Amino acid sequence: MNGERPAASPARVAIENLRPSVAAGRHAVKRTVGEWLEVTADIHADGHDELRARLLVRPRSEPNWREVAMAPQGNDRWSARVRIERLEPHLYTVEAWADRFRSWRRDLLRRQQANAVAEVDLLVGAELVAEAASRASGSDARFLAATAEALRGEAGEEQEARVERALEASLLSVMDRHPDRGRAARHAPELRLDVDPERARFSAWYEFFPRSSAPDPGRHGTLRDAIARLEYASAMGFDVVYLPPIHPIGRTHRKGPNNSPTAAAGDLGSPWAIGAAEGGHTSLHPELGTLDDFRALVARARELGIEIALDLAFQCSPDHPWVEEHPEWFLARPDGSIQYAENPPKKYQDIYPIHFESQHWEPLWDALRGVVDFWVDEGVRVFRVDNPHTKPYPFWEWLIGDVRGRHPEVIFLAEAFTRPKVMARLAAIGFNQSYTYFAWRNTGPELREYMNQLTGTELVEYFRPNFWPNTPDILPEFLQCGGRSGFALRVLLASTLSASYGIYGPAFELCEDRAVKPGSEEYLDSEKYQLRHWDLGADHSLRPLITRLNRIRRDTTALQGNRGITFHETDNDQLLAYSKTGPEGERVLVVVNLDPHHAQSGWLDLEPSSFGLDPGLPFQVHDLLSDARYFWSGGRHYVELDPEVQPGHVFQVRRRVRSERDFDYYL
Amino acid sequence: MNGERPAASPARVAIENLRPSVAAGRHAVKRTVGEWLEVTADIHADGHDELRARLLVRPRSEPNWREVAMAPQGNDRWSARVRIERLEPHLYTVEAWADRFRSWRRDLLRRQQANAVAEVDLLVGAELVAEAASRASGSDARFLAATAEALRGEAGEEQEARVERALEASLLSVMDRHPDRGRAARHAPELRLDVDPERARFSAWYEFFPRSSAPDPGRHGTLRDAIARLEYASAMGFDVVYLPPIHPIGRTHRKGPNNSPTAAAGDLGSPWAIGAAEGGHTSLHPELGTLDDFRALVARARELGIEIALDLAFQCSPDHPWVEEHPEWFLARPDGSIQYAENPPKKYQDIYPIHFESQHWEPLWDALRGVVDFWVDEGVRVFRVDNPHTKPYPFWEWLIGDVRGRHPEVIFLAEAFTRPKVMARLAAIGFNQSYTYFAWRNTGPELREYMNQLTGTELVEYFRPNFWPNTPDILPEFLQCGGRSGFALRVLLASTLSASYGIYGPAFELCEDRAVKPGSEEYLDSEKYQLRHWDLGADHSLRPLITRLNRIRRDTTALQGNRGITFHETDNDQLLAYSKTGPEGERVLVVVNLDPHHAQSGWLDLEPSSFGLDPGLPFQVHDLLSDARYFWSGGRHYVELDPEVQPGHVFQVRRRVRSERDFDYYL
Repeated sequence: MNGERPAASPARVAIENLRPSVAAGRHAVKRTVGEWLEVTADIHADGHDELRARLLVRPRSEPNWREVAMAPQGNDRWSARVRIERLEPHLYTVEAWADRFRSWRRDLLRRQQANAVAEVDLLVGAELVAEAASRASGSDARFLAATAEALRGEAGEEQEARVERALEASLLSVMDRHPDRGRAARHAPELRLDVDPERARFSAWYEFFPRSSAPDPGRHGTLRDAIARLEYASAMGFDVVYLPPIHPIGRTHRKGPNNSPTAAAGDLGSPWAIGAAEGGHTSLHPELGTLDDFRALVARARELGIEIALDLAFQCSPDHPWVEEHPEWFLARPDGSIQYAENPPKKYQDIYPIHFESQHWEPLWDALRGVVDFWVDEGVRVFRVDNPHTKPYPFWEWLIGDVRGRHPEVIFLAEAFTRPKVMARLAAIGFNQSYTYFAWRNTGPELREYMNQLTGTELVEYFRPNFWPNTPDILPEFLQCGGRSGFALRVLLASTLSASYGIYGPAFELCEDRAVKPGSEEYLDSEKYQLRHWDLGADHSLRPLITRLNRIRRDTTALQGNRGITFHETDNDQLLAYSKTGPEGERVLVVVNLDPHHAQSGWLDLEPSSFGLDPGLPFQVHDLLSDARYFWSGGRHYVELDPEVQPGHVFQVRRRVRSERDFDYYL
Repeated sequence: MNGERPAASPARVAIENLRPSVAAGRHAVKRTVGEWLEVTADIHADGHDELRARLLVRPRSEPNWREVAMAPQGNDRWSARVRIERLEPHLYTVEAWADRFRSWRRDLLRRQQANAVAEVDLLVGAELVAEAASRASGSDARFLAATAEALRGEAGEEQEARVERALEASLLSVMDRHPDRGRAARHAPELRLDVDPERARFSAWYEFFPRSSAPDPGRHGTLRDAIARLEYASAMGFDVVYLPPIHPIGRTHRKGPNNSPTAAAGDLGSPWAIGAAEGGHTSLHPELGTLDDFRALVARARELGIEIALDLAFQCSPDHPWVEEHPEWFLARPDGSIQYAENPPKKYQDIYPIHFESQHWEPLWDALRGVVDFWVDEGVRVFRVDNPHTKPYPFWEWLIGDVRGRHPEVIFLAEAFTRPKVMARLAAIGFNQSYTYFAWRNTGPELREYMNQLTGTELVEYFRPNFWPNTPDILPEFLQCGGRSGFALRVLLASTLSASYGIYGPAFELCEDRAVKPGSEEYLDSEKYQLRHWDLGADHSLRPLITRLNRIRRDTTALQGNRGITFHETDNDQLLAYSKTGPEGERVLVVVNLDPHHAQSGWLDLEPSSFGLDPGLPFQVHDLLSDARYFWSGGRHYVELDPEVQPGHVFQVRRRVRSERDFDYYL
């Protein structure tokens, strides 16, 4: 306040360290419908008055706050929680005040215990009750007015009886309904809560190239072919199907197979070189089909409970209609040419970046929003955004805020594989999910540290990781070298460490592990540049494992969020053990063999009491992957995993219960 | 932004996690004159542009920012530091922008290395240089205009020569002087920095009761007598002398010796029962002397380089003139009586609390500020504030801000022994120093944990601890039981753990350890209620030790601040070892025997390399307390301390240097 006197007698109560809060309220906290928001704050005042505090929450469109009483947790920390019901942006804050009646009542109790009640003490209380009567109405007002009279002795009661009357719980509960909040402190600023559909928190993604979805080798797949692949993904248990760009592909500087700088006649080019004579970001590549075909795909997805995710790649091929219609949206060089994408000295002449710092940025932004709106109108609710870190933060904050202001069910996934703070910022300004470094975290210490960064810091409030063991751009060295078992353990990790995960298939489940050259993470004969035909029924397919994992995830609430992960010690570095806890305390225990080549065994430390189990009783661990059940007791447990058999255990932990008829079972 | 489009094309650079910052800028960070302010922030943007950033700092009264270039530290973290020179509140923030010329220059270098420079690349650079020319003036403008021409080839140079010209360091330095900051991002809000005199950070306090300062036993001491005690404290090396209240003492409900509820005739009462017929908070107790006597005391203090600290106890005896003049400043009860202080069922009828929630709070606040202004006008620059946690936070924030806005050299010490968050809040809203829990932290783990709380958290930015081993209210059990050695080790800890410390004397140096009763921390025959006569020349006085400690503190910059404390492991729990580091890297090592009764010995872990010493060479530790010197080598060192001899070591660590003439010495 810098020595300026407040305008009115200021509130005495301090409300500090309100959590959750992202960058002091600059960004919104995220929750999904049905999740709890637990709010804590330091609340204190001078002196020794009894304080009261309420959490205030409301959907942004509602004028009135919903109020939830906060309870002290010790050390001046208060908390309350509220379940979020509506798919709409919310606001929340905290209000607190010194409660004179409660303070007086506490003191009266002490005086009573010390036999030291004075007549004036009751008169002070009578004043407080009378004031509350004037704030109340109806029966409360009549009750309080009568109580005030009685406390003053006007009903002729003995002092002892009046003290008892003053201390009655019923009086307290009526007084609590009519507090004097005239000097209540309110936390400023109000904090923002973004509310998303459940799929923003818990989702399983399957990516495939529609043009490779034809059942007959060599033919260009269509959106109608893609319906069968959608059903295949659905049968495996995926609930988001993500398609790389489906728009017309540019011809100028088109890339050939294996990213060759020149294309031969008939080469298909990269779907990310968007735009041709046939249209741009709101058109369909003619060989894939028509808008009606797309609508059929979306309709079938809806029947299957799947969301179709489109790729939002805001860049243009030199043949994109915008290049001619709106040259001002691209960066002109002094020689009149348009600046193509480059990472000097590398050139990507098949791509023109959009010039976001254009003087004509407002119509440009509107046009880009128009792209999103077009596909939203076609029923698309999920967008995977290509390289968002090469477009300005304020653009995304505006675009996502604007679209979700009208369609709060829309989900944006940020495909930014860049520096950690840039990725965090993109999440903070609105992206609902984010790609991560998971593909390059392989050892136990790496995975533990990374999970701690994601879930043990402020990130957990707004950055929702989506774990991908592969993408069309990323065939990690681990998958190149680990064989089928390597693929199996990586999908086990992805699907149990993170509530959202995804695979690029069928390359993944068919264990495609051939890189274009040593030291590269690019696929050989990458689908980015050519058609591929996949034998979905191959014996070695991981489809059964993935199907089982997705079913386990659906049945296990602890795997549906990212809070409350705990790592457990083992005496073998290759055995990674962790448990996850759901919102109501449900626990699941996962043990993974990180070595795809050898069986590994060792001892796992797990105290039964830390799982809420009786340390004196054996308990059962039920492997949801293999259906095997093991009986464990004590704090150390032997585990042995052979990668030829299964990549790990996903244990449900069952406690031993003695029935009334004197036999034991496990619950 | 909630989907609203920014008014102008928004800045692309994000500036986040600016540190230091207290509660997101709600409160000021504290520094003293001559200290460094090091500012760090996460700074990043979309894409791959080269960024530049500057720390902006200014005294609040200056319109123009001082700018200091920030440098990247890795992981998108940037930093800069600035030395604070003026005793005045400051503001600071950070500005950052994408630098197009630096980005272009980096790319040109890559193109040059790949032999891939195109003519248009030079044209792009020429445009940037020409734009800078239009922002510059004088020789810079001429140089840049000529360079732009040359880059375009208008001077007829070969491309190779023009590329060399574009990459010249001299061009970069001129371009750096004229950046395009039109789209620079500025961190909001601007952050506040409170600047205090050095004594706010580094001070040694001595408290005594003037009425006990007469040289002849039994006589009531005067402010003239207090001058001799001031000189005694000065000779010991103290630089703040704090006097309990020196105002007229109330007679109504006056307390007798040892806090007896009734006073006999001639009993002096507690100085904290302020106010009588002779006056209130701006009057002097007649037996202490006149305002002229006080002025003489202040003048002598000034000669000695000592600040006189007064006690600011905002409460009144029933005889205080305000009780009659301003009954509206006190809480009236329904029976017309004034509410006295109480902690039910305990009553403190000699004290009327001030009613800060009075309807007439504005004249009340003015009157209280008038008390401070009165003593500031009399030359008082330090106030020890009694129980600030029983008065509203907004009052202190206003009072301290107002007084220090006019007198930034004034220091307020908060005497709040209450809950941690309340103490932290008082510091955050303006108190320059704070009492602490030090008196009750005795074991090694307790002291380590407490120092970590104070110096390893955000507290270090605004909460300046003042460590007191005793006060007139607190004779800790440790001192009651530890004998003279207990006092010695406690003052060694206080004066070396905390840059500010104080003792209540002469009780402390004379090792007064008698409590009024078992289990109490009250002194027997406490000076709060009666005169005491002290034999300052007693043989057992700790005066020599304290004098030595204060001299060491003055000579050792590492002991003059609270940043950079490190604890070192020992194999004996009773040996506590820690080192402190000064702002320029100076180190001091302290080893304390926490056992006042027995000699203790053990091994101390201290790697020479962690002290910047050559691990292969022996080094010297010079005990500044005893002047003994020891030669240590390797990482483990034997220490033995006998409490009868000395409570610990305060080591200066000297490294071995070989002279040119081939003999070794220690520096």
